Amino acid sequence: MPVRPLDILNKSLKSPVIVRLKGGREFRGILDGYDIHMNLVLLNAEEIQGGEIVRRVGSVIIRGDTVVFVSPFPGGE
Amino acid sequence: MPVRPLDILNKSLKSPVIVRLKGGREFRGILDGYDIHMNLVLLNAEEIQGGEIVRRVGSVIIRGDTVVFVSPFPGGE
Amino acid sequence: MPVRPLDILNKSLKSPVIVRLKGGREFRGILDGYDIHMNLVLLNAEEIQGGEIVRRVGSVIIRGDTVVFVSPFPGGE
Amino acid sequence: MPVRPLDILNKSLKSPVIVRLKGGREFRGILDGYDIHMNLVLLNAEEIQGGEIVRRVGSVIIRGDTVVFVSPFPGGE
Amino acid sequence: MPVRPLDILNKSLKSPVIVRLKGGREFRGILDGYDIHMNLVLLNAEEIQGGEIVRRVGSVIIRGDTVVFVSPFPGGE
Amino acid sequence: MPVRPLDILNKSLKSPVIVRLKGGREFRGILDGYDIHMNLVLLNAEEIQGGEIVRRVGSVIIRGDTVVFVSPFPGGE
Amino acid sequence: MPVRPLDILNKSLKSPVIVRLKGGREFRGILDGYDIHMNLVLLNAEEIQGGEIVRRVGSVIIRGDTVVFVSPFPGGE
Repeated sequence: MPVRPLDILNKSLKSPVIVRLKGGREFRGILDGYDIHMNLVLLNAEEIQGGEIVRRVGSVIIRGDTVVFVSPFPGGE
Repeated sequence: MPVRPLDILNKSLKSPVIVRLKGGREFRGILDGYDIHMNLVLLNAEEIQGGEIVRRVGSVIIRGDTVVFVSPFPGGE
Repeated sequence: MPVRPLDILNKSLKSPVIVRLKGGREFRGILDGYDIHMNLVLLNAEEIQGGEIVRRVGSVIIRGDTVVFVSPFPGGE
Repeated sequence: MPVRPLDILNKSLKSPVIVRLKGGREFRGILDGYDIHMNLVLLNAEEIQGGEIVRRVGSVIIRGDTVVFVSPFPGGE
Repeated sequence: MPVRPLDILNKSLKSPVIVRLKGGREFRGILDGYDIHMNLVLLNAEEIQGGEIVRRVGSVIIRGDTVVFVSPFPGGE
Repeated sequence: MPVRPLDILNKSLKSPVIVRLKGGREFRGILDGYDIHMNLVLLNAEEIQGGEIVRRVGSVIIRGDTVVFVSPFPGGE
Repeated sequence: MPVRPLDILNKSLKSPVIVRLKGGREFRGILDGYDIHMNLVLLNAEEIQGGEIVRRVGSVIIRGDTVVFVSPFPGGE
């Protein structure tokens, strides 16, 4: 039985993730929630553009429609 | 159980939020309502473009389809 | 209970609204109707582009899919 | 009770309308039909681009997905 | 009762049509089939770009999602 | 009764097809499968861009959402 | 009976795949999961842009909405 993408989101709860958005922006933060549309809630999040942190927010709700990918942070280059 | 994104919207009612729209515009205002499509109602809202306030409105209904993210305002940089 | 975005549209019936469309155009007119897709009917409407009125129409049906936001007109800057 | 956008389309049957499409093209013609997706049928239609008539067709089926707005023709500037 | 757009497609079966696609391409050919998504089947079709025939195909299935409009060919300018 | 677009896909199974994607890329290969979303499976496929083969793959799953048209290969110019 | 695209995904589980995203990025990695929306889970994945590896991640969840095609890696040129 294949792994379900939402199961991986569930396993990543309370852990740091990178979220790439359409248009090239990224958020990094602690995954605090999600729903079946892949709407996401991040805590202690940084918005990154061109490698630079452009905003820090205590919490952010990201619409799933704008998400390209989500990756658990450790294991990045 | 994961936090649901709409629960966070609900907790943000009557509080200031930043709403980033596709194309780069932002609204800041008091979150007064929402629905399951993430359509939002803001009160005393400012539309911001390139860091400048370009419009002030008493209330605005934002279509969820155009929303990239919503963030409770305090905690920003 | 949160305010529902469509309730705000309902309260704005027969009143002047600004409608921002994707791509930057705006309509101003009297909100005469709407449906759950946020398709809108405006009366005595002006289409505005770059601050200039480019068209006046007695009535116009705007597809919700193209709407970015709707704002009751009074209260603007 | 608000006016429903499709009711206005219905009232415009057999009358001239302007249809603005995404990307800036327009059609003008006699509204002969529609459905709930706002797919439209125009008769004796002219396709207009940059103010110039670029095509005349006896009938045309326009996909609702590409429609920005529909306006009954009389009352235009 | 309004004419239904799919009824017009049905009446155009076995007849030449012009199909305008998003992005500006066109197909001309004999309409051989369609479905409720406005997916289309054309026979003896020519793909046209900038007024030039760029491809001839015996048959082609066009996804409705990419269709801007369909027009029965006779009656064009 | 009109020909159904998916019937034509079915008749093209095990035969060479051209698949045009949004953005201008094409795949050519043997149609091995499809579903109602027009997701496609091609075997022995070539990805073509600007008339050049840029990739050869043993099999590829193409998302229907990105498909502009599918054409049985023989009969092309 | 045609091959179903999701069956091919299923057969590719635990095997290397290339995933092309809208906008030109690619991921290469071991397919670990998927769902009916073609959301994908890759392990030991590399993000590639312009032929260069720009990121390595232990796991990544890719939204199906952004996928153009998925190809089992062996058999590529």
